[in-house]
Amino acid sequence: MFTINKNYLKLPGSYLFSDIARRIAAYQNANPEKEILRLGIGDVTQPLAPAIIEALHGAVEEMAHAETFHGYAPDRGYGFLREVIAKMDYQDRGCDIEPDEIFISDGAKCDSGNIQEILGMENKIAVCDPVYPVYVDTNVMAGRTGLYDQKTQSFDGVIYMPCTAENDFVPEFPKEKPDVIYLCFPNNPTGGTITKPQLQEWVDYANKNGVLIIYDAAYEAYITEEELPHSIYECEGAETCAIELRSFSKNAGFTGVRLGFAVVPKKLKAEGVSLNDLWARRHGTKYNGAPYIVQKAGAAVYTEEGQAQVKEQVAYYMRNAHMIYHDLKAAGYSVYGGVNAPYVWLKTPGNQTSWEFFDTLLNQANVVGTPGSGFGAHGEGYFRLSAFGTYENTKKAIERIIKM
Amino acid sequence: MFTINKNYLKLPGSYLFSDIARRIAAYQNANPEKEILRLGIGDVTQPLAPAIIEALHGAVEEMAHAETFHGYAPDRGYGFLREVIAKMDYQDRGCDIEPDEIFISDGAKCDSGNIQEILGMENKIAVCDPVYPVYVDTNVMAGRTGLYDQKTQSFDGVIYMPCTAENDFVPEFPKEKPDVIYLCFPNNPTGGTITKPQLQEWVDYANKNGVLIIYDAAYEAYITEEELPHSIYECEGAETCAIELRSFSKNAGFTGVRLGFAVVPKKLKAEGVSLNDLWARRHGTKYNGAPYIVQKAGAAVYTEEGQAQVKEQVAYYMRNAHMIYHDLKAAGYSVYGGVNAPYVWLKTPGNQTSWEFFDTLLNQANVVGTPGSGFGAHGEGYFRLSAFGTYENTKKAIERIIKM
Repeated sequence: MFTINKNYLKLPGSYLFSDIARRIAAYQNANPEKEILRLGIGDVTQPLAPAIIEALHGAVEEMAHAETFHGYAPDRGYGFLREVIAKMDYQDRGCDIEPDEIFISDGAKCDSGNIQEILGMENKIAVCDPVYPVYVDTNVMAGRTGLYDQKTQSFDGVIYMPCTAENDFVPEFPKEKPDVIYLCFPNNPTGGTITKPQLQEWVDYANKNGVLIIYDAAYEAYITEEELPHSIYECEGAETCAIELRSFSKNAGFTGVRLGFAVVPKKLKAEGVSLNDLWARRHGTKYNGAPYIVQKAGAAVYTEEGQAQVKEQVAYYMRNAHMIYHDLKAAGYSVYGGVNAPYVWLKTPGNQTSWEFFDTLLNQANVVGTPGSGFGAHGEGYFRLSAFGTYENTKKAIERIIKM
Repeated sequence: MFTINKNYLKLPGSYLFSDIARRIAAYQNANPEKEILRLGIGDVTQPLAPAIIEALHGAVEEMAHAETFHGYAPDRGYGFLREVIAKMDYQDRGCDIEPDEIFISDGAKCDSGNIQEILGMENKIAVCDPVYPVYVDTNVMAGRTGLYDQKTQSFDGVIYMPCTAENDFVPEFPKEKPDVIYLCFPNNPTGGTITKPQLQEWVDYANKNGVLIIYDAAYEAYITEEELPHSIYECEGAETCAIELRSFSKNAGFTGVRLGFAVVPKKLKAEGVSLNDLWARRHGTKYNGAPYIVQKAGAAVYTEEGQAQVKEQVAYYMRNAHMIYHDLKAAGYSVYGGVNAPYVWLKTPGNQTSWEFFDTLLNQANVVGTPGSGFGAHGEGYFRLSAFGTYENTKKAIERIIKM
């Protein structure tokens, strides 16, 4: 008799955003006349930039003719894309990253879920709390954790590093030494940031203790403060202890286009084995490349025209973030994030739980946000608002919240 | 100190097609003036059909405007695509498959590699020999096998089911009872087929013994003989024992576009748990949907126009297959497959090993094929030629082989 992977049964419920979708659907069914405004899931709303559309049309046309048709892509992605990434995202910022250290994928969610597959089962992982659920859930599914404790909202065998207003949403080094640490800055969900000296401390800690850092930099395009690091490789020694994940979803609106990449430096080794080799093997065996047309669209992001257009889009969302932050602050809310990230993280008023505030907001203002507790125990009492809506809807939503 | 997944070290070398690519590159470097003809890797050469190109352009245009822009796709894929698949691929053929039993993905290679993740580590897997390497390699990487034995070219703990000319490339039931069986018909690499009564026997065997069949039907579009099954769900009881994988790569030329799907029936359960639920959880946590524009392209395959065009493409490749088969047969080669599959599987002449014949072909005819032994021990002495080239190149390649 065949058996299932029983680690899946440890997962307490469905994926956070599926839960939210169900509650919205229930409310909308009961109140079909209400206009619901969504500041919940981190999905973008602006259309793809003209340079990207042009590149897509061009690539589609190439696929229409035998002479320019493209079949299977190279395992690691097309050179034209890996080269421009290596240059513009890394070398131009002083990071010593080569094209063959970059692996194109269909997005940072997949990479952040899949990356643990090349690691041993005995590794103890550490995550920020609150945290993007994929890091933990994929380790649970792989069997790297114990059971879930409903009371503490935590998995046995996982090290949780609290990130709250008290520590400015940057974790302290954990008391128990982990083997693998997931970090995400600018942070989802808190919108918090890490300074370069702070990140250097984590890199030094990792190198000293033989720890692997999985650094999720999906939101680096939203950094507005000059001195903040865009990449972990801006820190000395990161190439011997860190994998970095990047996304086109948020900086270029690719949530429905699907493109991202992982940087796995050749100097990164464990037990004498190159992680670049391992990831290449995983990529070559369980993945078959991002679509040619999508990789061409990705390359268009790096053209002069593309850069100008996507920066304008980011600025549009950051105008929303600025407005959410300042209007709610003026109305007496305690707000965080929103300056270098498209998320505003707020303290729920009147000691409401995160889900209570979710329901209050949905029922009284017809506004959807994301309950902080959905991201972990230390997210309880917090709430995430996303800046990815249109300016008009975002403005209207914030006015409704303030009027509540 | 963090550790790696040491199961990866059990893999004997690199992925078969990477090996081949290296040998070709070495030969081409040494002989830059030679024109190499490729009948090796199963990559298509015909451009995308006009109906697909039109759908792609249309979807790209939708992404250019806020009102029609699409962000994150639904976890399981868009309804418009799942519905037409359920109807045309299944219900119209008498198979009772619903849209919510279909999961859209970025291709059958990914699905066939990922599907084992929802199964327990203790499952014993059985594969045909020769076999598409991904089924075995992904189980090795997950830790479901022992070490590789170079002498027998097999992994300890895996049940290999020989498929040779002697059994017409359809395996017998294995002596040792497996928990999970991978079957692929029409077969890659042998081009062999299974009749409906034969497949029904496997379904009955699986239901009787609590075995899960993972049925790879990526090549069903190449079936020319009316009575052969296109789906395992044409067999009675398959929905309680089988997952089916499908691809758009070969039937519609999507190797560089990336689209496929898995069918996980709701009636399929183990230990009281629905595999549909498990795969939904895996899909929702480690994957983020196929691009909207690609799903629209997939839907275009099912339009009247699209169907006519992709059938013409399939016929084009099958004309190649027919020619390879008959011309080589006339020249005295022992050939198999090629009638319901885009692959011709031939016996290497003069008792050459598969790799010897690979080198002979590369050096003397400048033609690339795939060594049968790359697919398993019982592929030794065989060789795969693919029909996915242009007619002109294929004709030229076969003429060169015959002249050798």
